[in-house]
Amino acid sequence: MLGRLNHVAIAVPDLEAAVRKYGKVLGAKVSQPLALPDHGVTVVFVELANTKTELLEPLGEHSPIAAFLERNPSGGIHHMCYEVDDIIAARDRLRDQGVRVLGDGEPKIGAHGKPVLFLHPKDFDGTLIELEQV
Amino acid sequence: MLGRLNHVAIAVPDLEAAVRKYGKVLGAKVSQPLALPDHGVTVVFVELANTKTELLEPLGEHSPIAAFLERNPSGGIHHMCYEVDDIIAARDRLRDQGVRVLGDGEPKIGAHGKPVLFLHPKDFDGTLIELEQV
Repeated sequence: MLGRLNHVAIAVPDLEAAVRKYGKVLGAKVSQPLALPDHGVTVVFVELANTKTELLEPLGEHSPIAAFLERNPSGGIHHMCYEVDDIIAARDRLRDQGVRVLGDGEPKIGAHGKPVLFLHPKDFDGTLIELEQV
Repeated sequence: MLGRLNHVAIAVPDLEAAVRKYGKVLGAKVSQPLALPDHGVTVVFVELANTKTELLEPLGEHSPIAAFLERNPSGGIHHMCYEVDDIIAARDRLRDQGVRVLGDGEPKIGAHGKPVLFLHPKDFDGTLIELEQV
């Protein structure tokens, strides 16, 4: 069921500083910042040969990463996103096996414009998993 | 400088349970457990199309992930490993820019039999970064 690792998302308190570290210091290719007000984040993509690291900074008053940054003021790895072919089939299969799907279980349109769901980190060893239909 | 994302490592309190979740529940291809006593972990590789997730369980009395699991008893994402061509050149470049390399700064032979170094998480938004020479 699991396809590619689409990205690993890191919540950062200072996007400009993080971009400097990944770009100038680590020598990775980084995108321009992209404000996604509907998702409450500004994102920078660190383009790797096989996948992406996404640097997320809160945007607006209801950012989904604000609480995480309150608990982890220095930042930290927020979630991992895996690709699936059929997100409804994936959701139903997971629910049948007792996995808790966050929210109302209906896929939302994610930051890449594709349907996504999040799985409860308590069901996966403290790891917040995003599934994205590709 | 940064090459591929080699793996994301997740520390888990119960490897058998984690293997069941990634294998049976999420439907990923998982390896047999591999005991690495020199590295203080037993590892299972979750084989994705483009990279790997590594599930790590402490092994022995001096496991490098024991303290992490004491702080995070349910488990959690422990580190991200990026590939580099030349680990000595990478280390020197990073040090020149003020990044703290963990330990004595000499590469160790990592769990894949290749030279590795770890970078201080406080220099990368709370993310422990492993560099592996490939």
